[in-house]
Amino acid sequence: MAVYTDITDADLAELLAGYDLGEARSFKGIAEGIENSNFLLETETGRYFLTVFERRVSEADLPFFVDLMQHLARRGFPCPTPQPDRRGRLLTRVRGKPATIVSFLTGVSARRPSPRQCREAGEGLARLHLAAEGFVPTRANSLGQSSWGAQFAGLRNAADQLRPGLAAEVEEDLGVLALAWPHGLPSGIIHADLFPDNVFFMGDRFAAAFDFYFACNDLLAYDLGVCLNSWCFETDGAFNVTAARAFVAGYESRRPLSPDERSALPTLARGAAMRFFLTRLHDWGATPEGALVRPKNPMEYAARLAFHREARGLELFGDET
Amino acid sequence: MAVYTDITDADLAELLAGYDLGEARSFKGIAEGIENSNFLLETETGRYFLTVFERRVSEADLPFFVDLMQHLARRGFPCPTPQPDRRGRLLTRVRGKPATIVSFLTGVSARRPSPRQCREAGEGLARLHLAAEGFVPTRANSLGQSSWGAQFAGLRNAADQLRPGLAAEVEEDLGVLALAWPHGLPSGIIHADLFPDNVFFMGDRFAAAFDFYFACNDLLAYDLGVCLNSWCFETDGAFNVTAARAFVAGYESRRPLSPDERSALPTLARGAAMRFFLTRLHDWGATPEGALVRPKNPMEYAARLAFHREARGLELFGDET
Repeated sequence: MAVYTDITDADLAELLAGYDLGEARSFKGIAEGIENSNFLLETETGRYFLTVFERRVSEADLPFFVDLMQHLARRGFPCPTPQPDRRGRLLTRVRGKPATIVSFLTGVSARRPSPRQCREAGEGLARLHLAAEGFVPTRANSLGQSSWGAQFAGLRNAADQLRPGLAAEVEEDLGVLALAWPHGLPSGIIHADLFPDNVFFMGDRFAAAFDFYFACNDLLAYDLGVCLNSWCFETDGAFNVTAARAFVAGYESRRPLSPDERSALPTLARGAAMRFFLTRLHDWGATPEGALVRPKNPMEYAARLAFHREARGLELFGDET
Repeated sequence: MAVYTDITDADLAELLAGYDLGEARSFKGIAEGIENSNFLLETETGRYFLTVFERRVSEADLPFFVDLMQHLARRGFPCPTPQPDRRGRLLTRVRGKPATIVSFLTGVSARRPSPRQCREAGEGLARLHLAAEGFVPTRANSLGQSSWGAQFAGLRNAADQLRPGLAAEVEEDLGVLALAWPHGLPSGIIHADLFPDNVFFMGDRFAAAFDFYFACNDLLAYDLGVCLNSWCFETDGAFNVTAARAFVAGYESRRPLSPDERSALPTLARGAAMRFFLTRLHDWGATPEGALVRPKNPMEYAARLAFHREARGLELFGDET
């Protein structure tokens, strides 16, 4: 939760003067988002979110993200729709920081997704992949498989501080992943961060996906690997095969996996666990004591890595036809 | 800014099951409020705020506050209206903490109120005082003039740590206030904390007042004293006589002051400065380093106290007829 940028009523009036959205009727900082400050903005014409980009999101990437959201929305995918200003620009500046105004979305995130919600989310992910087809700009996955070795080089001590011996295990995982990583699978635009808190439901129905600020080009099935980690483990760390089957079944109801994609799922999920373990380990060490935002505990993803090392559940699951 | 209580989609469903408000369509933590956690809640029937009471607000006082808001709303005063649950209760519990659901209010707070907005806010304060007439329950002002000496007894060292010599000055102020404090002026329900961030405007028009969790019985003109401090000083600490005259003129457009109230204004404003200085001084010392909420700097109100010690602006203002 975070609101890093303080926006006054005068700032807001100046911002809205550049848009055709009417005057502000309500404006509230939202306790969501780590990289951005988010504000709920109601004007005479409707409800919107104002996102102010704070850090970690590279300003050079912002046109990619807002253009992608516009593309997806135009293709009928439920996501925040960037609102153009009077000069047609999707990005603006507030208090010197880059910002965008997007449409409001209704829905509630599932804290502990049910298998039914997993199925819906899987279907939503496939819809996202299909809607993104034809989007021309590309963005390399800066947190993709080829980056993990270099990321971990500076984090060996941090890993062993977390648990003595962990660094050696991760090192071995990295070697296995480098050898096993699939090539030639279908690629395209992926969300790359579709955790349950980035999805809205209305009841059990998928309503929207948001927070596209890690979106990039990579293997489509890798996005499923991210979701198998973030949607299909219980809070006690146990893998929920029912949830995982539901997620993939939902995905395949819109975009069937090839046999190669399916058999690569255990490796892709293991890699996705590595990706989140590494960034959490980095943030864990980099966050000063008493900071306003508490970083997520990297041990959750160290446990996922340990699970994938054994991998019985996912192997079984991945091999199934 | 604060959201202390984490509410899951399951908690929310359980909460709404006790109300006739329909199912949740949207639910967001709001980065506002220090004593409470606040959530924007949209259901099938409309938009609401869920306030979860965290601390400093005594649970025994909560019925007074929600009953007062209901009374004010019924008398046409624009303020949050508590929504009864299926059993007619205005208070509920969420995750074991007391909570209330109130109506949504539109409007934007003025960061640097214009004289015109001060006039509107003054009129709004008088409307509040008049609408509160007939409200039967009472609540003593636990932060009123009679409490200040005891409050300061434990804060002498903190004052001198802020600035050597400050404790002696405050001690003298307390003596002056005890002697000069008016008695026999009209009393009733006061808001007691009507800072600009507790008022909404639509454009320049007063739209609503909220955050009634310091409301109590005290001298009505003391509420004006609170506002002269919180609305009528520039950010550089200068007193804005134009804003102050506008505030009082707005107030008197609905409830003219008696000559005794008017001549007491400089003393009441000085006392109000003392009240906020003391609580800020207390919070300043009591907040551990690195806490999530940064306390307000007590020096702002130490400067107000110094201004009132000289008091030329307010004397002139108070004496005017």
